[in-house]
Amino acid sequence: MNNAELASVYEDYIACLNAQDWTILGRFVADDVEHNSSVLGLPGYRNMLEDNFAEIPDLQFSVELLVVEPPHIASRLRFNCSPSANFLGLRINGRTVSFAENVFYEFREAKIARVWSVIDKAAIEDQL
Amino acid sequence: MNNAELASVYEDYIACLNAQDWTILGRFVADDVEHNSSVLGLPGYRNMLEDNFAEIPDLQFSVELLVVEPPHIASRLRFNCSPSANFLGLRINGRTVSFAENVFYEFREAKIARVWSVIDKAAIEDQL
Repeated sequence: MNNAELASVYEDYIACLNAQDWTILGRFVADDVEHNSSVLGLPGYRNMLEDNFAEIPDLQFSVELLVVEPPHIASRLRFNCSPSANFLGLRINGRTVSFAENVFYEFREAKIARVWSVIDKAAIEDQL
Repeated sequence: MNNAELASVYEDYIACLNAQDWTILGRFVADDVEHNSSVLGLPGYRNMLEDNFAEIPDLQFSVELLVVEPPHIASRLRFNCSPSANFLGLRINGRTVSFAENVFYEFREAKIARVWSVIDKAAIEDQL
């Protein structure tokens, strides 16, 4: 899979998240996916995402910068959203915050197999 | 500049940081460099790095994962170090902590022109 093909798969994955179309998540995410060194598996990964949308009803993923070198993608994601109560241990209570996530993905057979994510918590704290 | 050449420049940049060889920093960093949307310029960038080493005497940069797509590089850096007092607003007081930084670089004429960095502050908090 070349750069453009892998980027296209990733764009479809992001569209799947934004549509909360969990029935097709398995097209993009491996059965034994790891997230920040925890083996979540596909059901655990789906639970994590569903929890994110439960905590943040207006959550949308927006790709600000994409760096593609198969089998890896690095993505800088931008969020402008309003967590209804707590998020990352911070009391947000419905305020709108803007923050980035810098995240790496390792693909295996066109599916996300490993994820290393860091959310810019300090940027959120600065807005509270 | 192809992937291997850009990766090689980046490896030399990391070696420069670990040697604290500030006299050659300008080989790798543009005069008008921006860091997290602040225009630091080369002197400001050097000051930031010198402050990092003042706060963390045993600071060393270790590349865990590199994704290269010219003109961009994404790097997952790993730190095992002992900030002597405060770091990111947290009281560390000489304890050894392990954390990652997920960071994107945009190169222009083989020099770092823009940087978007996120440090895993939540991981540090979990260790305190």
